Amino acid sequence: MEKNPVRSYFFIFGFILVGLLITSQVSAQERLLAPPLNLMPWPASINAAPEGGSLLIDPSFAVLLNDASDPRLQSVAKLFLDDLRRHTGMLPLNFKIASGSETGQFEIQSGAASKQPQQLGEDESYSLTVTSTKAQLKAPTTLGVMRGLQTFLQLVQVSSQGFAVPAVTIDDKPRFPWRGLMIDSSRHFMPVEVIQRNLDAMAAVKLNVFHWHLSDNQGFRVESKRFPKLQEMGSDGLYYTQEQIRQIVAYAHDRGIRVVPEFDMPGHCTAWFVGYPDLASGPGPYSIGRQFGVFDPAMDPTRESTYKFLDKFIGEMAKLFPDRFFHIGGDEVNGKQWDSNPKIQQFMHAHGLKNNADLQAYFNQRVQKIVAKYGKVMEGWDEILRPDLPKTIVIQSWRGQKSLADAAQQGYRGILSSGYYLDLVSPTSAHYVVDPFTGPTASLSDVDKQEVLGGEACMWSEYVSAETVDSRIWPRMAAIAERLWSPQNVTNIDSMYNRLSTVSQWLDAYGLTHNTQYNVMLRRMAGVDDVSVFRELIDVVEPVKGYSRYALAPAEPNSGTPMNRAVDTARPESMPAHQFSNLVDAFVSRSARPGVEAQIRTQLESWRDNAEKLQPLASKSSFVQEVMPVSHSLSAISAGGLQALDYLDHSEKPPAGWDQQQLTLVQQAFEPKAQLLLMVCPAVQKLIQFSAGEKPTELPIPKRASQ
Amino acid sequence: MEKNPVRSYFFIFGFILVGLLITSQVSAQERLLAPPLNLMPWPASINAAPEGGSLLIDPSFAVLLNDASDPRLQSVAKLFLDDLRRHTGMLPLNFKIASGSETGQFEIQSGAASKQPQQLGEDESYSLTVTSTKAQLKAPTTLGVMRGLQTFLQLVQVSSQGFAVPAVTIDDKPRFPWRGLMIDSSRHFMPVEVIQRNLDAMAAVKLNVFHWHLSDNQGFRVESKRFPKLQEMGSDGLYYTQEQIRQIVAYAHDRGIRVVPEFDMPGHCTAWFVGYPDLASGPGPYSIGRQFGVFDPAMDPTRESTYKFLDKFIGEMAKLFPDRFFHIGGDEVNGKQWDSNPKIQQFMHAHGLKNNADLQAYFNQRVQKIVAKYGKVMEGWDEILRPDLPKTIVIQSWRGQKSLADAAQQGYRGILSSGYYLDLVSPTSAHYVVDPFTGPTASLSDVDKQEVLGGEACMWSEYVSAETVDSRIWPRMAAIAERLWSPQNVTNIDSMYNRLSTVSQWLDAYGLTHNTQYNVMLRRMAGVDDVSVFRELIDVVEPVKGYSRYALAPAEPNSGTPMNRAVDTARPESMPAHQFSNLVDAFVSRSARPGVEAQIRTQLESWRDNAEKLQPLASKSSFVQEVMPVSHSLSAISAGGLQALDYLDHSEKPPAGWDQQQLTLVQQAFEPKAQLLLMVCPAVQKLIQFSAGEKPTELPIPKRASQ
Repeated sequence: MEKNPVRSYFFIFGFILVGLLITSQVSAQERLLAPPLNLMPWPASINAAPEGGSLLIDPSFAVLLNDASDPRLQSVAKLFLDDLRRHTGMLPLNFKIASGSETGQFEIQSGAASKQPQQLGEDESYSLTVTSTKAQLKAPTTLGVMRGLQTFLQLVQVSSQGFAVPAVTIDDKPRFPWRGLMIDSSRHFMPVEVIQRNLDAMAAVKLNVFHWHLSDNQGFRVESKRFPKLQEMGSDGLYYTQEQIRQIVAYAHDRGIRVVPEFDMPGHCTAWFVGYPDLASGPGPYSIGRQFGVFDPAMDPTRESTYKFLDKFIGEMAKLFPDRFFHIGGDEVNGKQWDSNPKIQQFMHAHGLKNNADLQAYFNQRVQKIVAKYGKVMEGWDEILRPDLPKTIVIQSWRGQKSLADAAQQGYRGILSSGYYLDLVSPTSAHYVVDPFTGPTASLSDVDKQEVLGGEACMWSEYVSAETVDSRIWPRMAAIAERLWSPQNVTNIDSMYNRLSTVSQWLDAYGLTHNTQYNVMLRRMAGVDDVSVFRELIDVVEPVKGYSRYALAPAEPNSGTPMNRAVDTARPESMPAHQFSNLVDAFVSRSARPGVEAQIRTQLESWRDNAEKLQPLASKSSFVQEVMPVSHSLSAISAGGLQALDYLDHSEKPPAGWDQQQLTLVQQAFEPKAQLLLMVCPAVQKLIQFSAGEKPTELPIPKRASQ
Repeated sequence: MEKNPVRSYFFIFGFILVGLLITSQVSAQERLLAPPLNLMPWPASINAAPEGGSLLIDPSFAVLLNDASDPRLQSVAKLFLDDLRRHTGMLPLNFKIASGSETGQFEIQSGAASKQPQQLGEDESYSLTVTSTKAQLKAPTTLGVMRGLQTFLQLVQVSSQGFAVPAVTIDDKPRFPWRGLMIDSSRHFMPVEVIQRNLDAMAAVKLNVFHWHLSDNQGFRVESKRFPKLQEMGSDGLYYTQEQIRQIVAYAHDRGIRVVPEFDMPGHCTAWFVGYPDLASGPGPYSIGRQFGVFDPAMDPTRESTYKFLDKFIGEMAKLFPDRFFHIGGDEVNGKQWDSNPKIQQFMHAHGLKNNADLQAYFNQRVQKIVAKYGKVMEGWDEILRPDLPKTIVIQSWRGQKSLADAAQQGYRGILSSGYYLDLVSPTSAHYVVDPFTGPTASLSDVDKQEVLGGEACMWSEYVSAETVDSRIWPRMAAIAERLWSPQNVTNIDSMYNRLSTVSQWLDAYGLTHNTQYNVMLRRMAGVDDVSVFRELIDVVEPVKGYSRYALAPAEPNSGTPMNRAVDTARPESMPAHQFSNLVDAFVSRSARPGVEAQIRTQLESWRDNAEKLQPLASKSSFVQEVMPVSHSLSAISAGGLQALDYLDHSEKPPAGWDQQQLTLVQQAFEPKAQLLLMVCPAVQKLIQFSAGEKPTELPIPKRASQ
């Protein structure tokens, strides 16, 4: 089926371009740079119809179901029509669901209803054929229908006749059966509507697992009826009722998404101990964690009462969350409470447990039996991997492909999260190049490779609130979703970025706030309506990377630290900086179109004046004041960049020392300020080097801003 | 208390400016043009603290309640802290509710809990004192506390120290006890979240009545358990469950808003007859209305079964909606079904009912008794006013101050809606000048004036969907709210517009989409990410006014007509056109600051090129194609405007006939196209007249675009 996927992918891409744009001479490069179809994830196989044309979406549009009596298919069709309304602004009443002898422009055939609850590995394949008169979607399961409908939606484009879908044939199926997003609702609580709109977006890019991190030191977020002090004393009143959980699970199921709950244990559970201090290994009382990091408190694995509690608790949660998998966390136990508790030491000695790892393994075995008793498969982070656990468990690797390969060789299934940590605010391309099968996993045997189920992106919430979380997940998540769904050879980064920009704005229709909240936050910080000068600056900065935000924080961050500053508003990846960088690359390669220099000059002139224009706002707003050093840097290096252009224009050699002085300035400008990085520094460095006759070099992100 | 409100208003305004901006010489004009406090509605009395200063809002901010045991006050304080979080981006955990001996920067004292359900005429007054160390809010009722908290929120501004509230003393109370917004959920259904975010915004501008138009020819929108066919057959599945109604009523109550349901009868009820055809005066079957306007079907007022049905129905709804008022509509019965039904004619003859108005009055009397039986006061539109109804009923006037005055003189209470129809997309100023006491009501005796309870804006939904409705209500609604709350002499239109622009963006924090959805819709129409050229055009157009949208529709509109075009996206009032008009007014008055001509020129140059720059998008999008004639008009008149500037610059007299030719062009450009008006035409006309040495005149909106 995929005998020569690389060639067919390129061939099809070009073919569609030719078919749709009626462009006869397009270079291979341009084909990938300007794809007219903004599909993400890119399908396994796609062909433009030889006859061309497109199917109009007008008010008479009707969906025809092969089995309108299947309530699951009915509800899938209704959700699809709602989505179609969002993406066209047409009204739901325009669109009909037909059945039997009626006609419809869009015929949907489902082989069988998908399972309830949804199972790992269910068939998600589909085939979609669109002609200028009708569309046909066939899938062996309702789940495949859902995936195909999302592809259809992404194909809807405005045309000279109104909304239309190009004639095309697609055969598609996922590369991995487990494609997930983890959201941490503990460190900062995420209200129901945040979860729901993220589930909408997940469905749009064909993700199928929502991993919900529901408890941690900073909060226990689920209502327990058996142990109500968990939420009453451990959540500041910010938790999900069981009714809300059921609603969200149903909401996810309607979108083909499994919900895997995580209750982290035996560490990361200070919030449990506020109401139930006897669970802990050290004496109480406990209070909800406000700082971040690894805490000492851990459950006492040596007392039978711990397991009695967990048996009742897991029994209750197993009913609430119908998914077959149950995540027990298991990460980052520092063992200090165990070390200092004589009874625990005595127990270890008596049971031949040589160290804390052995003790945790003992705990995991006990918990695994409880999880299994309630019909669930246990999942946990790398640390739980020990040969004494049954082969059914699943390892989620935050450490890398090595632990995934180790697990697979021992016969354990695993999913990759290392490289997909969205909270580290890396550029999309950095995530996009991470493949579950690179490094140690690439050399696994075919049989062992089967154990690698897929991957999951993680949105840890130390530095996001309900207001900012969307902007830290989207649009970057869509590229990871493509990595996990599309064939392994779909790797062109330019094509990804081109499609990503459209997908990002397309997600606005679901009420995601990653784009819309940007201006709202800028205006709130500036305290004025016209924020164009402020936005000009924030457009080209990014938050410091990795864990540097913590290291560079003006004060020890905690869960009450306001997240309303420039570092919270700036996007994880500055596209304007990207675009400027592309202009400069073209310019210094001497292959630039005419006008590129003028564009660079206009941009630099505007940036050069940024600090002067921004100063009046800064005197009235502490939030603007905070970023004035960045603005001054931008103005300074832009002035240098303009000098560089002047030297080039006059074919003049810069005076001795000028370049070194400017490069030092650029380096200083690239140092983090207000926890921000000025992302146009590398491009300006290239301009300066170019004008000085030096070979342009890459300017790496300063170390203390990248770790 | 308000002995010389005009003077004190001006005095205070100026005083605050001086105090806060440390500006010593400000003209009276500028005082009103640049108010630093963006309060809306403007309070009855406001004084800046003589010592100046401001109260910082930082993470330690705490609210101190005089009676923390009052659950109503607790929930009010919690909502306030949530709002404060929205407006500052700080987190809820930062803010505390203290009580008893603890301290708090914000002391709140409530005299008594407000009533449950909320009553008409409850005391809503409050006094608020802010110093640089603390704030104090005192009110006789929780309702007054709510109003004062909204004022406090509007005072929160960014400062050089972070968020702060200026030191100020405010004594405030509403002018009218009934300040409402009606939303029509029948012609287009408005989902729960649309209603909720509009309730948030209503509370923000101190409105206290949500009038909910729940049934009409196009849909019956409430679940009835006694007569389930009402919603099952009359709503296309788009209705509110009783549980949702209860949630919304509670949501409104928490925000100090009464919910008055309207079930329009005996006309406007085709949707009832789909499930219950026997209620009608003509033979069925009936189907849900799809077109708009006045329909023939009406309830049969002559059959006892009609009243038996209504007794049960109203009994059920009276429980669901706790408010004391119950709106029965009563408007626009054309009587055709009554005329053609022999049994009805016979009944009228037998009972001495001379005409259809008599018959409707008979119906209203019967219905009033049912409404009263369930403890409710009947409300209806102008048409229900007949001396045979008890004096308790309330008249909502869509016809004007005359019917309000007539009602008052007969001892009936009334509220004004004429002049406040938001669906007619009038400019804000047109609503702002409408006062319940102008014309016939102004000359009422003081006693009769008491019968005028206030006013209600109406959002009829023929031409709005859930996606566009916010943009047709906000921000204009805020100015009407000010009219109904603030002293009658608060009438400065420039000041209103200045504050309105800030209030509009401030409402974004509640998730209202009047600003955020604009770009989303533009991008959807254009099918590209960069919509700057398209936005430049749509920024300066407005939908045609009044009922012209119907008259100028390309095809008979119905409830399935897509509302995704430029006319749905363009704002009811173009602020960029306003600003351009102000520039031109300054320029032709020769009192302009230097640089104004350059600003006008830059703007005209950009507009002149609009059509050329927009053409490539138009060839790919039918939505852009539709507005190309408007773009061509913009380009053409901008070229003329530039010529006018050139003649002026060269002190040259334009050639004979040039001005007439240009003025004809401008008039053609101002003719509606694509149901849009190009709002910069009047200003360009002034430029042309000015350059030709003529006295600039106002260009009225063409008749067919204004009615």
